Amino acid sequence: MKSVTLHSPATIANLVCGFDIIGLCLKEPYDIMTLEWSDQPGLTIEHIDGYGLPILPEENVAGGALLALMRELEPEIGMRLIIDKKIMPGSGLGSSAASATGAVLAANRLLQHRFTNEELLQFAMCGEKIASGVKHADNLAPCLMGGVTLIRSIHPLDVIDIPSPELFISVVHPQIEVKTSDARRILKKEVPLRSAIKQWGNIGGLIAGLMKGDHDLIGRSLEDVIIEPIRNILIPGFEEVKSRSLAAGALGGGIAGSGPSVFMLSKNHDTAVAVESEMKAIYSRMGLDAKTYVTSLNSEGIHITHEAA
Amino acid sequence: MKSVTLHSPATIANLVCGFDIIGLCLKEPYDIMTLEWSDQPGLTIEHIDGYGLPILPEENVAGGALLALMRELEPEIGMRLIIDKKIMPGSGLGSSAASATGAVLAANRLLQHRFTNEELLQFAMCGEKIASGVKHADNLAPCLMGGVTLIRSIHPLDVIDIPSPELFISVVHPQIEVKTSDARRILKKEVPLRSAIKQWGNIGGLIAGLMKGDHDLIGRSLEDVIIEPIRNILIPGFEEVKSRSLAAGALGGGIAGSGPSVFMLSKNHDTAVAVESEMKAIYSRMGLDAKTYVTSLNSEGIHITHEAA
Repeated sequence: MKSVTLHSPATIANLVCGFDIIGLCLKEPYDIMTLEWSDQPGLTIEHIDGYGLPILPEENVAGGALLALMRELEPEIGMRLIIDKKIMPGSGLGSSAASATGAVLAANRLLQHRFTNEELLQFAMCGEKIASGVKHADNLAPCLMGGVTLIRSIHPLDVIDIPSPELFISVVHPQIEVKTSDARRILKKEVPLRSAIKQWGNIGGLIAGLMKGDHDLIGRSLEDVIIEPIRNILIPGFEEVKSRSLAAGALGGGIAGSGPSVFMLSKNHDTAVAVESEMKAIYSRMGLDAKTYVTSLNSEGIHITHEAA
Repeated sequence: MKSVTLHSPATIANLVCGFDIIGLCLKEPYDIMTLEWSDQPGLTIEHIDGYGLPILPEENVAGGALLALMRELEPEIGMRLIIDKKIMPGSGLGSSAASATGAVLAANRLLQHRFTNEELLQFAMCGEKIASGVKHADNLAPCLMGGVTLIRSIHPLDVIDIPSPELFISVVHPQIEVKTSDARRILKKEVPLRSAIKQWGNIGGLIAGLMKGDHDLIGRSLEDVIIEPIRNILIPGFEEVKSRSLAAGALGGGIAGSGPSVFMLSKNHDTAVAVESEMKAIYSRMGLDAKTYVTSLNSEGIHITHEAA
C-alpha cells in the first residue's frame, strides 16, 4: 500500500446530558485526507483548504497524532499528509478530532492494521491535546467507530459502542467564536448532588432509549441540567432555537461540543428540515450570519474512498 | 374476587453507581401478603410476623399506600390486610417497598386492574414516605415490575425497564442498625464535577452492559465514586467484603439501599456461593453476627400465589 484517501466525518460530543462521555458521528460534513508513503523519513503536512492551519507537524492536530503513532515504529518511516478540511475549525463539530482520527486511521491502513482501535485513539488524543490542551476522546471515538459512543472511562480508556436507531440531525452554526478553553472555564467545579442525580437519570434513559430504539424515551432524556444552563449564555438565540425546534417536532438537542453550533435530533428527515427552517428564521431575524444543514447519523465512521498499492 | 395472596420480594436500590435511580428485584426473601374484601368500610391491618410494626393504617407503610389508593375510590370500600413479613425491616433490602407495593398491587387485582402501574407506584410512594420521610421509587419500581429498573425522573415519574442477563446475588446483612435518615444526612450536598462525570460514565456503562448482556462491562461499571466512599464508614468490614468478593470472582457490588446489607453480583451461581463464603468468613473473624444468602435476579417481581372469588 502506497497511499490511502478517506473521509473523516464531523462529530457531536457532549451529547446533551452526556457531557464529556457521549458523542455521535455525522454523515456530513467530512474532511478529505490522503496519506502517502514518502522516501524521506519524517512527516510533511499540506493543507489544501483555506483555513491557514499550522503545517508544522508538532503544531498540527493531525501531525501530533501521527507523530505519537510514529514514535512506536522502528525504523523511522516517512509519510506525507494532504488535508482538505471541510469541517470548519472552531464550529464545535469535532474538526480537530476528524484530523487526528483520520490521520491515524490512514496510517494504520498503510501499516496493515498494526494497531488496535484503542491504540489509535490514544495516538489521536495526543493530537486533540494540541487543539484543546486536554486529552479527550468524546469526538475521536464516534469519528473512528461511527454511530453513538460512550466513553465510560478515560483512564483507562474504555469506549462502548451504543446501538442506535436512525436519527436525523439539524445543525446551526452561528458565525461567532466560542473558545473551548472559555467554555471550560465558566463551568462550576462543584455541582449539586440533586442535579447530578437528575443528570444520571437522563444518561441512563438516553442509553436505554438509544438501545431500545425508543424515540420518545430518547427525547425525554435529552435534558442537561448542569452544563447547558451555564454555557447557553455563550450562544445568542440558543433558547429560542431549542424551544422552536421542539415545537417543530425535534426530539431534543443542545450545544454541539463546546459550541457555538447547536444541534437538534429528529426521528425523520422531514422534521429535521422543518427544524432547520426554524433555525434559519431565528438567526435571519437576529441579523446574525449562521450556516445550517441537515444530515443523519453516520454508523460507519471514517470512510476509505481510495487505496493505491 | 374476594381475596388475593402474593409474594412481594426484596429489592436492592442505589445499585452502586446508580444512586437514587437504579434498582433490582431479588427472588428471595419475600413478604407474604393477603388482602381480602371486608364488609366494614375502611382498612384493618394484621401482622403475623414478629417485627412489632405499627398496625394503625396511617402509621403502617402498606397502610399508607392503601389509604392513598382508597382515597381515589367511591364509594368507600372495606379491606383487610394480613402481612407475614420475611424481609427484615432496616436491612436495606426494600422491606418497606415490599409492603407498600404488595398492598397496592393486591388491591388492584381486587379492583380488576383499575389503576395503571404508574398510579400504583404513586400510591406506594405515599407508603414509602411513612418509612423514610421521602417519596422515592427506586425500590418500589423493581418490586412491582421485576428485573432492573431505572427511575429516569421522579417528577414526573418515569420508570424504564432495563433488560438484563441472569445475575446471581450474594447478600450479607451485618446485624447492626443504619438509619436511612443518617445515611442521607452524611452525604455532601455538592459533588465535584469530575466525580459526577466519572459516575455518569459508569451509569451509561452499566445500562449498556445490562442491555448487551456484557458481564465484563457490567463489572467495570459497578463503581461508585460519590456515595460509597462516604457511606462505607457506616458498615464495618465493607472494604474487605468488597475486595475479597472481587477476588472470588464477583462482578462488583456495594451497599444495598442505604445499608447495612452489602450485595455482590456474580455471573453464575457457583461464584455467588464462593462470594457468600468470603462474606461469612469476614464477619465470623470480626465476631459480628451477620446473615448471608445467595439468590438471583427476579425478572417477574411480585408473584400472585392465590386468588379466591
